[in-house]
Amino acid sequence: MSVKSYIESNQDRFLEELFSLIRIPSISAKQEHKADMLACAQRWTEVLLLSGADKAVVMPTTGNPIVYAEKIISPTAPTVLVYAHYDVMPAEPLELWKSNPFEPEIRDGRIWARGADDDKGQGMIQVKGFETALQEGLLNCNVKFIFEGEEEIGSPSLEAFCQEHKELLKSDIILVSDTSMVSAEVPSLTTGLRGLAYWELEVTGPNRDLHSGHFGGAVANPINVLCKIIADITDADGRITIPGFYDDVEELSQEERDMIAQVPFDETKYKQAIDVNALFGEKGYSTLERNSCRPSFDVCGIWGGYIEEGSKTVLPSKAYAKVSCRLVPHQQHEKISKLFEDYINKVAPDYVKVKVTPKHGGEGYVCPIDMPAYRAAEKAVGIAFGKKPLAVRRGGSIPIISTFEQVLGVKTVLMGFGLEQNAIHSPNESCRLDYFLKGIESVAEFYREYTKK
Amino acid sequence: MSVKSYIESNQDRFLEELFSLIRIPSISAKQEHKADMLACAQRWTEVLLLSGADKAVVMPTTGNPIVYAEKIISPTAPTVLVYAHYDVMPAEPLELWKSNPFEPEIRDGRIWARGADDDKGQGMIQVKGFETALQEGLLNCNVKFIFEGEEEIGSPSLEAFCQEHKELLKSDIILVSDTSMVSAEVPSLTTGLRGLAYWELEVTGPNRDLHSGHFGGAVANPINVLCKIIADITDADGRITIPGFYDDVEELSQEERDMIAQVPFDETKYKQAIDVNALFGEKGYSTLERNSCRPSFDVCGIWGGYIEEGSKTVLPSKAYAKVSCRLVPHQQHEKISKLFEDYINKVAPDYVKVKVTPKHGGEGYVCPIDMPAYRAAEKAVGIAFGKKPLAVRRGGSIPIISTFEQVLGVKTVLMGFGLEQNAIHSPNESCRLDYFLKGIESVAEFYREYTKK
Repeated sequence: MSVKSYIESNQDRFLEELFSLIRIPSISAKQEHKADMLACAQRWTEVLLLSGADKAVVMPTTGNPIVYAEKIISPTAPTVLVYAHYDVMPAEPLELWKSNPFEPEIRDGRIWARGADDDKGQGMIQVKGFETALQEGLLNCNVKFIFEGEEEIGSPSLEAFCQEHKELLKSDIILVSDTSMVSAEVPSLTTGLRGLAYWELEVTGPNRDLHSGHFGGAVANPINVLCKIIADITDADGRITIPGFYDDVEELSQEERDMIAQVPFDETKYKQAIDVNALFGEKGYSTLERNSCRPSFDVCGIWGGYIEEGSKTVLPSKAYAKVSCRLVPHQQHEKISKLFEDYINKVAPDYVKVKVTPKHGGEGYVCPIDMPAYRAAEKAVGIAFGKKPLAVRRGGSIPIISTFEQVLGVKTVLMGFGLEQNAIHSPNESCRLDYFLKGIESVAEFYREYTKK
Repeated sequence: MSVKSYIESNQDRFLEELFSLIRIPSISAKQEHKADMLACAQRWTEVLLLSGADKAVVMPTTGNPIVYAEKIISPTAPTVLVYAHYDVMPAEPLELWKSNPFEPEIRDGRIWARGADDDKGQGMIQVKGFETALQEGLLNCNVKFIFEGEEEIGSPSLEAFCQEHKELLKSDIILVSDTSMVSAEVPSLTTGLRGLAYWELEVTGPNRDLHSGHFGGAVANPINVLCKIIADITDADGRITIPGFYDDVEELSQEERDMIAQVPFDETKYKQAIDVNALFGEKGYSTLERNSCRPSFDVCGIWGGYIEEGSKTVLPSKAYAKVSCRLVPHQQHEKISKLFEDYINKVAPDYVKVKVTPKHGGEGYVCPIDMPAYRAAEKAVGIAFGKKPLAVRRGGSIPIISTFEQVLGVKTVLMGFGLEQNAIHSPNESCRLDYFLKGIESVAEFYREYTKK
């Protein structure tokens, strides 16, 4: 049987196995889902064994457990380590979903659910690509799987796990499906990622909510102050004003800029898709440069004062924000985090108290396109999608990719099958059914190419 | 029996009647309390009849009903119109209350409950002062009562009600207990109030929440933009930057500034009470000038993006804020509202959509201190509190006071018995029991003084 026909005849089962994982709401950001994390990890071990792994276990960490599985062909064969994550983002705002985020539905040729793409769908592509290669006699290497349950909250336990299990995780290349392609027409492989630094800000004014009539004008309002602090972090040119922030940012070479300019990009369609009249970002760079190779500063959440129905005239006690910077390769998130903290503490006025709490962070990553594993992935995707994939740098962060490099000394090939329209992290996340199947085919073909004699 | 002893022998009943009103959570800002509004209005009619009114009725408006009651002595006698409001502020954040906000408790010589002061407690002071004067044979004028249920949401129905019932509300002076005294040691009467303008801002960026990695740096973040807009509304000197905003603000005369400087004020204690290290406000004015005679700009609430537990890396679709300006006499809230809207629409960048929704507003007010009714109030408070009250301008707003002047052509005496420590609009609102009783005494003495032959 060919790769394509094996996939075709088993696709209903593949989907059922995926759906069984999606139905477990493994939201790592919320404590109330602790039991779901374990249930989801256990379900993955079952799926991995069904798919051909010799062994699949749930291993404890200080946080959510890690799923480890393996298929060992020969001690002398090369080893591929497949990483994925079984946790998902919160699904809020729930009222915007057209169907239950944790009850997958197939409509219009797509799978609709939280995790349909990120990363249960893409994790399943890896597992079923492995199964297909195994069943079709194409697997001439060892395969190890490591699926974590804390990617969406910054992988706090993964680095220690890698340190502790270096021998177990020993491998020649890491394969990850957790990124997106340029568009439905332009298959691509991700060769660079941005880093991330994330903080919570808490501004405290008076010790209780005050009447804005009796105190307004006399006492600093913590929301006004927080807005000022946030506003000052970027200037009118969209540049970040924190001293030293750009010190380690490598300027883009003309060659790289030319490569980015080749990526098909229709600004009008891009704006239409998200319904904005204009784009905004750092002056002097194109949109694709800005969202992949340049740092950015975003407020991810803000709250304070009276936010319910009606008008309350209050001068509130507290204001909060969750803020983050996307970083580029060479910027170290811990150094940036320190610069940010110092800056905030310096600009915080004496009439409020400002607390900065660093949250998760990670470094950026660059993948060399002349590695054999990259070439194998390029060829495999070319076969499945009928077109040679472009090598592109992307704006997202998978901090653990640089952790793998530092701790395990292994490079990663980012073989992702997402699309922007899949709306990961948003309401109505989805995954194209044909991409799901072509992804599986790509992974099976990768194994053929990678171990070709 | 004397005024004092009448109050003493009836105080338990007075409190029971007050508590019966407090137990009805008449929160006008929330639709779910519609039935409570009517129940509270009806309870007031019972209390007013028990207190000696000839007639007390619930009258419909387009919003919450209005309680009207009267005691007519003689068609030729002067008429006092007493205004109060039976609605209260929301009680959130509920977890900060030491006892149930709608189950009054007496502890440490205070009544603790939402509305203990604002304005059920103070409304009851008026009603029981009236009862005392009546029972003690001191009432030589007609008294009318108008208690509304929408003061905390800007009295949207009151002006039309006054227009429609000018004859019914005909009076010589309006008496209101809804303000505070300078301090427990310094009795005072309020002779000026600030106006108010209130808006909701809605900033829309992309049509859905986006992944901050894929879009951050390329697409404007509506929270970042909202913060910038808010930050720019005031400058480093605490002045409001909206063009034309100060056009109608009367500069304080040296005489007035001297009078304000006489009000006892301990900045250290003031800062300690609200636990701030420093104060902030418009440069060039003292704290007491800033919170009573100068305009201010406060964000009352802000929200947008991911505000739950954990860290979500999202570039949100929307950001919102509730913002308000306190205005001073001569500034017209409708004119200011228009200036604000024009300003926001002018500064709104093309990469987001900004919507400004004006909410309630009202003008400031000044009370002449040579009116007979003011003199009567001054004398009455002096008797009850043992000290002549200071005449002071305050920072709060009771927009309907200027409406009364414009529609009914009647001035108001603001005879308030609150204290800053009562924490109105905040968790753990309270009212000193002795002030409650001295307030009742003051009102009874007012009737004696006002109609003295």
